[in-house]
This record gives sequence, C-alpha cells and structure tokens, in this order.
Amino acid sequence: MTRDRLASESAAVLAAVRRARPRVQCLTNTVAQQITANVLLAAGARVSMATHPDEVVEMTAGAAALLLNLGTIDRARIRAIPRLLADARVLSKPRVLDPVFVEHSRVRRAIARSVIAAGPLIVKGNASELSALALPEDATRVETGAIDRISSAGVPTVTASNGHPYMALVTGLGCALGGLIAACAAVEPAATKSATAAVLAFGIAGEIAAERAVGPGSFAVAFIDAIADLDDASLLARARISQAG
Amino acid sequence: MTRDRLASESAAVLAAVRRARPRVQCLTNTVAQQITANVLLAAGARVSMATHPDEVVEMTAGAAALLLNLGTIDRARIRAIPRLLADARVLSKPRVLDPVFVEHSRVRRAIARSVIAAGPLIVKGNASELSALALPEDATRVETGAIDRISSAGVPTVTASNGHPYMALVTGLGCALGGLIAACAAVEPAATKSATAAVLAFGIAGEIAAERAVGPGSFAVAFIDAIADLDDASLLARARISQAG
Amino acid sequence: MTRDRLASESAAVLAAVRRARPRVQCLTNTVAQQITANVLLAAGARVSMATHPDEVVEMTAGAAALLLNLGTIDRARIRAIPRLLADARVLSKPRVLDPVFVEHSRVRRAIARSVIAAGPLIVKGNASELSALALPEDATRVETGAIDRISSAGVPTVTASNGHPYMALVTGLGCALGGLIAACAAVEPAATKSATAAVLAFGIAGEIAAERAVGPGSFAVAFIDAIADLDDASLLARARISQAG
Repeated sequence: MTRDRLASESAAVLAAVRRARPRVQCLTNTVAQQITANVLLAAGARVSMATHPDEVVEMTAGAAALLLNLGTIDRARIRAIPRLLADARVLSKPRVLDPVFVEHSRVRRAIARSVIAAGPLIVKGNASELSALALPEDATRVETGAIDRISSAGVPTVTASNGHPYMALVTGLGCALGGLIAACAAVEPAATKSATAAVLAFGIAGEIAAERAVGPGSFAVAFIDAIADLDDASLLARARISQAG
Repeated sequence: MTRDRLASESAAVLAAVRRARPRVQCLTNTVAQQITANVLLAAGARVSMATHPDEVVEMTAGAAALLLNLGTIDRARIRAIPRLLADARVLSKPRVLDPVFVEHSRVRRAIARSVIAAGPLIVKGNASELSALALPEDATRVETGAIDRISSAGVPTVTASNGHPYMALVTGLGCALGGLIAACAAVEPAATKSATAAVLAFGIAGEIAAERAVGPGSFAVAFIDAIADLDDASLLARARISQAG
Repeated sequence: MTRDRLASESAAVLAAVRRARPRVQCLTNTVAQQITANVLLAAGARVSMATHPDEVVEMTAGAAALLLNLGTIDRARIRAIPRLLADARVLSKPRVLDPVFVEHSRVRRAIARSVIAAGPLIVKGNASELSALALPEDATRVETGAIDRISSAGVPTVTASNGHPYMALVTGLGCALGGLIAACAAVEPAATKSATAAVLAFGIAGEIAAERAVGPGSFAVAFIDAIADLDDASLLARARISQAG
C-alpha cells in the first residue's frame, strides 16, 4: 500500500538523521531560531546558526545541509547569501529555501530569486508565498497548509494531511519544518522522500502533542517532546499520506 | 459598576481581536520576539517582525498596528524608525512605543523622543522608563508595575492590579504586553479602552497561569495557554480594576 | 569533606545572587538570548542584552558583570567588543567569555583572542572550543562535558559530574550557564568558587528537571522551574563534586 510505503520510507529517513546526526547550518530569522534549533536537536540532528558574511561560508562548508529562511531578513543575511551561493562547497550541499512573507516584500522576492537560480533545491512555503515565486523544473516544492503537497518534476506528488490547528499558533514552527527538511535532505538525496519524512514527522508530532496540550503554550512544549520520542509505530499507525499515480 | 463596565468593554475588545485577526508589525527586540509572537497568536492576532529598513515600511503599510520596542536596539532598527515615521500610511495606524531601559541609554532616549514627536501614540513602560521621557498631552501613558495605570488626556485614569510576581521572571513578557496593546488598538480606536483590555487580559492570564505553575518556566507556558483560553467569565470574575472620577 | 564544603560554598554564592540581584549585561547570541535571560531571572539576577556599539558600554558600566558569547556573532557585536575592552569601568567588572564554535570560525578566534588578552576572565567552553584557544595563566577555565572541570592557576581543579543528557538537547542552555557564571562572579570574586556554584546549580537543576520531564521540551521548562526552586538541601544532597589535592 502506498501509504505504508511512504510511512516506512519516512521512518527510515528519520532514523538515518538520528544515526548520522547531520549538522544543519540555518541562516534563519531571529524569531524562529530557538524553536528551529530545539526541533533539530530533538530529531537527533545538530545545528549552527551563523549569520555573519565573514564566517557563514566556513560554517556551511563543514555542515551537511543549509537552510535559508527569509524571515526578519537583515543586512548581514543579505550579504551572506551571495557569498554562500558563490561557493562550490555550499552548492554541493542540499539546500532548503523558506521564503517567509515573500509576497509582502520586494527585498525578499529578489533574494528568493537569486537562491532559486543557483540550482536544484527544496522550496517550502504556504500557497501565498509559493505563488509569489516562479519555480524551475528542478526545484522541489513543499506547499504547506491544511493539506501539505510535495512535488518534484518526474515524481508523483505526495499529499499529507496530518497536523493540528495549534501548529499555526506557535511562532516559528513552520520555519522549524524547513530545518527538519534540510536535516532529512542531508541523509536522503531523493528530495521528495526527504521532504515527505519531515512533513510527516511534523504532522504526526503535532497530533501527538495536541493530545497532551491544553493550549498553544503547552502544545509547543509537547511538540518538542513528541519529535524526540517519535517512533516507527506512530508513523505507521497515524500517517495520512498518499502519492498520485 | 465601573469595574464591571471596564471588564465588559475589555472583553469586547479582546473578542474583536479574535474576529478581525489584525496583523501587528512588531519592530521589537530579539529577546522578546518569540514570546511576543506567541502571545499575539494566542490572542487571535497575526504578527510580522520585519526589521530591515528597506522592507519595514512596506510590511507596516499592510499591517493593522505597529509596535516599536527599543530593547536590543540596533543599526537596522535605528535606520528603520525614521523611515516608518516619514510614511503617511504608517502614521495613520495605531502605534505603541515600549521604551525598554530608556533611562540607561542616550541612544534609546533620542529614538524615543523622535517616535513621540511623530504624533499620538500609546507609550508603555515602568515608572523608571516613563520618568526618563516627557510625554505630550496627546500620548496615552500605560505605566506598568504592581499597579498598572492607564492615562490619556481628558479620560479618567484607569487603575488595574491583577497579575502575579512570576510575570517579572519571564523575559519579554512585558514586551509582549506592548504587542497585545497594539493588537487591541488595531480594533478599538479609544486608546484607554484598548490599553485597558490588553492590561487586564495580561493580569488575569497571569493569575490563571500562576495557579497551574510550579515555577517561572511552567508559568510562561501556562500564560500562553491562558491567553488563548481567556473568556468573558474570567475577565468579569477576576478583574481588579477601577477608573477615577 | 571536600564535597560538602564545595556544595555549601556554592549554596552561599547562589544565595548571594538572590540577595544582591546583580544585573548581568549579556552580549550573547540571538538563539540563546531568551533562555539565558530566563535562567538569570529564575536565579534571582537581572539581565540586559544591549548589543549596539553606541550603547553597550553605557549599559555595561552600570551592570555587575559581563558575558561575551560569540555565537551568531555579527557586525554590531564585533564593533561593540573593542569598545567594551577599551573602557576601564568595563574592565573592572567580572567577565565571562563563551567562545561558541570558535574552532569553526577564524572571525571568532580573532575576537576570542582580543577578549582574553584584555585581562583576567573566566572562559567557559567544551573541550573542542577550549583547545582552539591558548589561555593565559590568569584565566579561569571552565570545561563543560559529561564531567565539568574548573581550573584556575594556583587553585586545585574542581571536577563536577551532575547533569543529564537532555541538557545537550536544549539550545542555548550551555550559553545560559555562561550567564549564570557571570552572575555568580558578580557576587563572589574567587573565580573558581563562582564558576563552581553556577556549574553545580546547572547540573543539579538538570537532574531535578529530568525527573519531571518526558522529553527535551518539558525538560527545558522544568529546568527553569528547578533553577528558581533550587535549595541548599538539594545542593548538599545531590552534589557530585570534588577538588584535587
């Protein structure tokens, strides 16, 4: 059954993250830094968050994957990104772009375009953010919402619908998903598979956390616990996921 | 009874925030960004936290209210503020200033004066911060402390005394109050009413959270839950609030 | 017994922090700002986090101790540090350096060297960070790991082994330890004693928190509660600590 295959593949990717402990260099917004780091640590990955243009290439060269998140973009990040995109070691690593609020800012659209033009990557955003960008054929698209959709050229689209409304009330949780996609991409080169694993882990951890929470505050805490404790049985039992074709 | 009227008016303002879901653009300090965003989301508002001078005006133009918090002030924020104050769309929106630690820093005093000079606004701070600033007649003053005082020219001063000592042990919680005042000001033009609603919500959520907490860590979590769950009955039953005259 | 003496001395230092409420100026990374502030507040200290070069000296002049943490170093912090090191009032205060990821970045190594050259201080890091730096005789060295080691010239090395593996899964917790060392150094001039008190408080709070937690999310919350609630009896009963010689 497709559902079971997707859940099993995802479980294998998440286990590989725990084994390999990839370091993800996150050039991400200051609002989401803490929860992104805590989600990555809970998932078994490591994390660095350098932003200074003079050190970010060096920090990324030794990392296993790169997250570029455009929230609270600032001068340092705007200067850091071209340096990252000019470095062959950086371009050889899996990259995830999260174009936060790109539809509201010309500055962010210009940066997003330069990141996308630098070669194959995974772009994660909501419908409104993704519709503000033209994605080339070689980009993998992860559209989040009540239903999440993961699409790559030549691969049937994966549709996932786990999750809980509390997830939208925890700031930075969507940004943290970008980080987990990068961690999965560090251990699984097939972008659809790595993105699917992260999306599924998030949705199911959200459901488990909601069962233990009384509001968005306790939910955020329980979510980190659930990511750390996520096991194959929960993934297989709870996955609401399918693949076209 | 004045107390009941103030509590009812506040409940109406908080309900209007939940209905209208105003987006508050918060130019705030990096320490308080996460909790400010989570409080706003829990209260039913939306939030953006752009800081770059080249995008912050655009981000604010589409927002419903603006928070200017001077904590961890940096070069980007120092450059962003004059641009915001020079834009007619920004000046047409409710604005809240939180002059964090202004009494310790000449840089912050100069910025605070320029924000205050740009027209009517709400200024929230403790006694020591507010005494370092001269406020014009058209400013609404929200002085926080064991007793909170909300005063506008021509409106009798509101005095509120809900709250809990744990509130002072959670970093950024006072800053988050500035954000909630801005969200309330987005739906209620009478500054005394909007500030009162936010102050009352905070104090009562603090009391509810303290009943569920064993220390300041669990208190911070329970506080977010309490804001999300705050109902009219709690406001009416718990309000310790009065108005002069 | 050495163990009991070290625990008693540590309890006295922590009580002095609660009495004196020293303000610690933390020039620290944006990922760790929130948890550092919350740990300091829970321990009874006060905190400021100014970063702008034009105000950080003024902010530090009125503080009781200074933390310099090199995580997410940026232009503002790089400009602020030489100004701090050029000010006699700043140099008269206890200073803690946390050279986060210094082994991965030339920029950070250069800054770390300049901080170390400015006079006696406490340097806290893991083995890999500390081995990237040459420390002079007058520096106190706090090496964290499964076993923590505190060494100053002329003072027998203190070895502590309280703690819990969850501590490594909470982002910024190690950085927050740097803040607590600074708070302790503000009230206890003997660097070995102040660093020992902070290290012991952290390890024991970690053990207490782990007993109440089901994962790293609930652990982080319980850790803050445990710091706020730490009493002499717990320190004396739980300390796993010794001193050479």
